[in-house]
Amino acid sequence: MRIAELSRVGGVSTATIKYYIREGLLPSGRLTRSNQAHYTEDHVHRLRLLRALLELGGLTISRARDVVSALDSPAGSIDLGAMVARGPHAGPLATTLADPRTVAMVRTLAERRGWTAPAGGPQFATIVEVLDTLRELGQDRFTDRLDDYAEVAQCAAAIDEEILRTCDGDRAESTVVGAALGDVLLSALRGLARNGSGTASSPTLVTTGRNGAEA
Amino acid sequence: MRIAELSRVGGVSTATIKYYIREGLLPSGRLTRSNQAHYTEDHVHRLRLLRALLELGGLTISRARDVVSALDSPAGSIDLGAMVARGPHAGPLATTLADPRTVAMVRTLAERRGWTAPAGGPQFATIVEVLDTLRELGQDRFTDRLDDYAEVAQCAAAIDEEILRTCDGDRAESTVVGAALGDVLLSALRGLARNGSGTASSPTLVTTGRNGAEA
Repeated sequence: MRIAELSRVGGVSTATIKYYIREGLLPSGRLTRSNQAHYTEDHVHRLRLLRALLELGGLTISRARDVVSALDSPAGSIDLGAMVARGPHAGPLATTLADPRTVAMVRTLAERRGWTAPAGGPQFATIVEVLDTLRELGQDRFTDRLDDYAEVAQCAAAIDEEILRTCDGDRAESTVVGAALGDVLLSALRGLARNGSGTASSPTLVTTGRNGAEA
Repeated sequence: MRIAELSRVGGVSTATIKYYIREGLLPSGRLTRSNQAHYTEDHVHRLRLLRALLELGGLTISRARDVVSALDSPAGSIDLGAMVARGPHAGPLATTLADPRTVAMVRTLAERRGWTAPAGGPQFATIVEVLDTLRELGQDRFTDRLDDYAEVAQCAAAIDEEILRTCDGDRAESTVVGAALGDVLLSALRGLARNGSGTASSPTLVTTGRNGAEA
């Protein structure tokens, strides 16, 4: 298809398509002999993915570029989920700015829960900064319930993993979409549940082992 | 204190402080007779709140302005949590763009769970858009587990509410901070749990009534 049709089908202006190509987010179309570019269903799909990451996931252009590069040239060691995760930290923890007691608290939490991701990564750094900020703001009450929030997050991660295990298509893209849109979905569901919980039953969490027995 | 000290204590440059005052995010200091502005601990606290909302919560300046206005002139009907929630929707659902089947699915979910928030609000709109986008991207597997994610989100909301119920200070500010930083915290915890779950126990959710009996 030509760029006009790509624009119509993908729901993105031709100017935006050209911008994405310039920025390395979208591959160029194949040039036909009439000197017009030809686009395929892969371009349509990539445009939809970009819209999801940028508009819904709130990624910056630069972060989205890193994500699609990683999708295009897969390398096992890259943490695709962390690349799209919310939070200010793209890099490791700046330990000089963090309260050592908070770092120790998060390290202990991760160890107790058997989370094997290395301490000091971007998500670790985000957790530390959130907890330090909560204390600064006098909102320690949220920190007191850290383990309960961790339990909830672990339940969400378990669902993510079950979905990804049964992926028959592109697992890398599913990881990215699940992490980016999953955060948005959980945030909105949490808000809806909080606002409307007057008559709702209150759920509780029970940790069980993989075999279903209580741990 | 003078602006230089406010800058030092608040960890924000004087240029940024002046920008926040111009943008209506921070009240002006009290002018002393020497024609210098005098700032208080309230200014320090507000600066910390702004940093939390803008840097960690990822709010835009305009959204942060709405939030601090709402905090400064409380009105019971404003949903402070929704104001800071992640997602592209500040307004109601644009039903013309949404798939009616998705709208019906989310409405059914909310009714089944007893969520009384009116359908069509910003969070409702975000859920619909995420689900429509997942289908467009061929990631329906996540949608199939919507109820499990809703259960997780309801658990998080229940923790939020328990914290807010015991708030002895400014409940409105706690609501805002809990919603904004809670999303970031849950996202990072979920990422950490996902990456490190190789050896972790897999938690499962059990819905119980408020009295603790299984529903």
